[in-house]
Amino acid sequence: MPQLRLALAQVDPTLGDLTGNARIVRERAAEARDAGAHLVAFPEMVLTGYPVEDLALRTSFVEASRTALDGLAADLAADGLGDLPVVVGYLDRADADGDNVADADRLGVPKGSPQNAAAVLVEGRVVARYAKHHLPNYGVFDEFRIFVPGRDLTVVRVHDVDVAIAICEDLWQEGGPVAQTRAAGAELLLVLNGSPYEMDKDDVRRDLVTRRAAEAGCALAYVNMVGGQDDLVFDGDSIVVAADGEVLARAGRFTDSLLVVDLDLPHDAGHASAPAPARAVPGVRRVTVSGEPVEPYSPDQAFRAPATIAEPVEGEAEVYAALVVGLRDYVRKNGFRSVVLGLSGGIDSTLVAAIACDALGPQHVVGVSMPSSYSSEHSKDDAADLAKRTGLDYRVVPIAPMVDTFLAGLGLTGIAEENLQARVRGVVLMGLSNSEGHLTLTTGNKTELAVGYSTIYGDSVGGFNPLKDVPKTLVWALSRWRNADAVRRGETPPIPQSSITKAPSAELRPGQTDQDSLPPYDLLDRLLERYVEAAHGRSELLADGFDPAVVDSVVTMVDRAEWKRRQSAPGPKISPVAFGRDRRLPITSRWREDQS
Amino acid sequence: MPQLRLALAQVDPTLGDLTGNARIVRERAAEARDAGAHLVAFPEMVLTGYPVEDLALRTSFVEASRTALDGLAADLAADGLGDLPVVVGYLDRADADGDNVADADRLGVPKGSPQNAAAVLVEGRVVARYAKHHLPNYGVFDEFRIFVPGRDLTVVRVHDVDVAIAICEDLWQEGGPVAQTRAAGAELLLVLNGSPYEMDKDDVRRDLVTRRAAEAGCALAYVNMVGGQDDLVFDGDSIVVAADGEVLARAGRFTDSLLVVDLDLPHDAGHASAPAPARAVPGVRRVTVSGEPVEPYSPDQAFRAPATIAEPVEGEAEVYAALVVGLRDYVRKNGFRSVVLGLSGGIDSTLVAAIACDALGPQHVVGVSMPSSYSSEHSKDDAADLAKRTGLDYRVVPIAPMVDTFLAGLGLTGIAEENLQARVRGVVLMGLSNSEGHLTLTTGNKTELAVGYSTIYGDSVGGFNPLKDVPKTLVWALSRWRNADAVRRGETPPIPQSSITKAPSAELRPGQTDQDSLPPYDLLDRLLERYVEAAHGRSELLADGFDPAVVDSVVTMVDRAEWKRRQSAPGPKISPVAFGRDRRLPITSRWREDQS
Repeated sequence: MPQLRLALAQVDPTLGDLTGNARIVRERAAEARDAGAHLVAFPEMVLTGYPVEDLALRTSFVEASRTALDGLAADLAADGLGDLPVVVGYLDRADADGDNVADADRLGVPKGSPQNAAAVLVEGRVVARYAKHHLPNYGVFDEFRIFVPGRDLTVVRVHDVDVAIAICEDLWQEGGPVAQTRAAGAELLLVLNGSPYEMDKDDVRRDLVTRRAAEAGCALAYVNMVGGQDDLVFDGDSIVVAADGEVLARAGRFTDSLLVVDLDLPHDAGHASAPAPARAVPGVRRVTVSGEPVEPYSPDQAFRAPATIAEPVEGEAEVYAALVVGLRDYVRKNGFRSVVLGLSGGIDSTLVAAIACDALGPQHVVGVSMPSSYSSEHSKDDAADLAKRTGLDYRVVPIAPMVDTFLAGLGLTGIAEENLQARVRGVVLMGLSNSEGHLTLTTGNKTELAVGYSTIYGDSVGGFNPLKDVPKTLVWALSRWRNADAVRRGETPPIPQSSITKAPSAELRPGQTDQDSLPPYDLLDRLLERYVEAAHGRSELLADGFDPAVVDSVVTMVDRAEWKRRQSAPGPKISPVAFGRDRRLPITSRWREDQS
Repeated sequence: MPQLRLALAQVDPTLGDLTGNARIVRERAAEARDAGAHLVAFPEMVLTGYPVEDLALRTSFVEASRTALDGLAADLAADGLGDLPVVVGYLDRADADGDNVADADRLGVPKGSPQNAAAVLVEGRVVARYAKHHLPNYGVFDEFRIFVPGRDLTVVRVHDVDVAIAICEDLWQEGGPVAQTRAAGAELLLVLNGSPYEMDKDDVRRDLVTRRAAEAGCALAYVNMVGGQDDLVFDGDSIVVAADGEVLARAGRFTDSLLVVDLDLPHDAGHASAPAPARAVPGVRRVTVSGEPVEPYSPDQAFRAPATIAEPVEGEAEVYAALVVGLRDYVRKNGFRSVVLGLSGGIDSTLVAAIACDALGPQHVVGVSMPSSYSSEHSKDDAADLAKRTGLDYRVVPIAPMVDTFLAGLGLTGIAEENLQARVRGVVLMGLSNSEGHLTLTTGNKTELAVGYSTIYGDSVGGFNPLKDVPKTLVWALSRWRNADAVRRGETPPIPQSSITKAPSAELRPGQTDQDSLPPYDLLDRLLERYVEAAHGRSELLADGFDPAVVDSVVTMVDRAEWKRRQSAPGPKISPVAFGRDRRLPITSRWREDQS
């Protein structure tokens, strides 16, 4: 039975860093060669980073991607890796001269239209190309905006094994490349992905690759990227399944790694040892890299790579890991070394501080306690306790003098006075950011963002928000999990217990608690999940069992806060529908669900 | 020759206000009937407002639109308007039971998929439907995200005239409904639009309708909406051309109006007096409303409606009108009655104050002078002079006491101290906004936004920015135009001359001018137009004749300011590529044009 040692490089490219990303490919390709791999594959658009958004529409960037691809092919050969086929995602254009990127005339699109492409690099050259057929244009994706679709399937013969190539959404849609793979009699379907993290997506992914392997009638290898890019986190979770759905190998999540697996790939009934044109299938382009089968492994299989099936990461652990990676990469890739945030003693800022310490090290985290006359003693104590537990750089800046000067000048009261305190804190944090070079973190959770329970230009100041897509109830769960995990590892729990247990309060007036203005958080979060993520209207929400008065009040708060969300900082998506480009609603809107 | 009196209702709907928008339709339909019209048409999605963005994905909203349409049909009949065919745009779903909205099964899309639709209302019923074929998914548009396309053309026979219906982008694409209109032998192509303003778009539009009328082989009537919706302004400019391209009628721009025109419509060679099925064309659905020709007008044409061809609005006048309408509608439709802004004496805040006074009346504009120790005397004088000229509500709040308290607490210097002053001003404005209920306006022009020459959470605070898409050089031109226009009308020019002529300065340190940090504005704006709007890369910019050092410096500033723009307030689009959803770039990006 034909065999192939396949390596999947689950790497973390940086958007736009063509040189650095090419370097990653070379390093990982060398590692794959050292592991005896016959083929190594990298994620979707690994060379440019992903998603490039409207950079795809800039000719200079498309050309730079093409040039970088050619340079990478040459460099790999110079590295002595010319005989190892390397499959990489990159940005191409529709009038490319390569055989396997559709030409513009045939597709009826403007010459030069960008394509989301993959290339096979062998012996210093691009020997095959493929362009993504199915362009996602929902959720966070805008690929109809920036790409033209491909139409042909590319099949490369490597060591007498026919390998079909597809890209990400191609796998999520029925028919298309998956069906073409079966028609072409390919023996392995290799899918390059830039598939962002969502809670429990690993389960969905596992089911999907199993189903598609059956449809394609062959083994399926899925390679995904890791790392953060603005509001997206890529969780890796690269996986290889046999035609019957058996999981042969699976990489860890959120970690850079090289997954190596030995495959036994039965020849398709129609496999011909003759060169490609002998078995022409319409819409399939074939390229032979090597018709020579791999030397059979010895009977004791001593040369086989050990099969790796990583332990699953589930529940709070997977979300926490996503938040850490999202923050770490935003900081690092934007050239920061440290962050600053306000510490109120409340659970949101406390959890963000813990995430930041895990992502960057406590020496790179500045936490500022900014007590006002309404701050309770326990708040100040909790902030100091957090600092002691984690070792972050702790500062105290009382805001009463600044607040008093504004009050003297403007005479504000009520909500205006409450917001003033939050805004003075924002000015303090941005002052420290400007003078010391830290990235400012804002810490409003998804529930707050949903109902607008925050002060714009106050507690919302900051370049990044780790909790943007984390509902309040999950904030508590993550905090408890983080402490328990520390205990399991014999470490000090970073989060003061009383930050978890006390009643949440903005402390902007005496005795204030969140529940003065909002329904209980467990109810609120369940309702928001239905309204924001499931897009349920009023009648559906009532059918879901929510009280009409609560529905009307919460839905109105959500609708009215759109203008604030529009000016909010990015933060990692962890849910099916995050605020931001995942949910695009007008600010100006008189639509109210109670009209329905 | 068959005749028809056509009315185009160029109206200003409010997004989501189904009841209010239906009322507008009823009022305008009554007016059309009073003018003797035989057919009245309203803009694209007039019933829901436009663009609805992801509200299209909410079932409750789609159903409410369908219900409102049925209610509108009934109400029109109850108003005694049942025999006047009324054509309105609305939101429908693909499994609608109407004959002329494509069914979901046939299109292979999920049941209930939303469609951008038009309906013909007669005698209390929906007698014909049409779904937009071409869905724009570029620039500010995301219609592949939210709609499924239609496929059939709808032709309604009204007084023996065959009228084909199309929606907006259908007209901008070759083939499709325009070609179908010719094939169907229709005698009038009626196009419903929600076509946002861009500078000089009236010229483009005029050329387009002329060309498409020739392609369709018949007269063409184009009805567009007016008014502001978040970052878009609709300029009206409804137009009717004969088959040979002659302009028969044209509505004013930026004004709500009813355009009535008498049309002589020669029968197509294939016109059959028999009922619709007699002349079946594939992909064309025909509905006969009335086969009775209009009673011929008397030879002296005494009954003909006067042909209206509005005076063109060009150059600075059209941009200024767009900014006034955009601001007025944002304020009004979001339930505000007044605005507050900081007045520095500089040209940006001065021009915004003038626009706000024109949009809302000076009694609804609060201008706050917030001098610091670096503010020049002329700045304070110019702000006061502006207030006197316009009559706006003028306040003075010196910021030195607040700034000093922060400096005492934090010890900031340099850029941090400069930003501090801007942020203290932001806190003052937001305090007034919170306590008095004004919408805060921010006044950074497009040039500043491009290069990041502003203080985030400082001078950028505010819910709306009239100058967001206005380059600095155009700010001056608009200011000069506004003053000259006042002189022409015998009024006091609102803008102090010295605000126009003095060297621009942020006045955040002694003797500072913008040109300490930036190239001259005329050069800068030309370069930005090439980089931002034309998406030219470095080599193209050099070929454009720009100096390499200037290119590298400006391009780097633009790229690095993406994070600030992401948190900036919306403002009206006037250029081909505005910041915001029109230009979607990653924040995290190491791509630099000097790598290309």
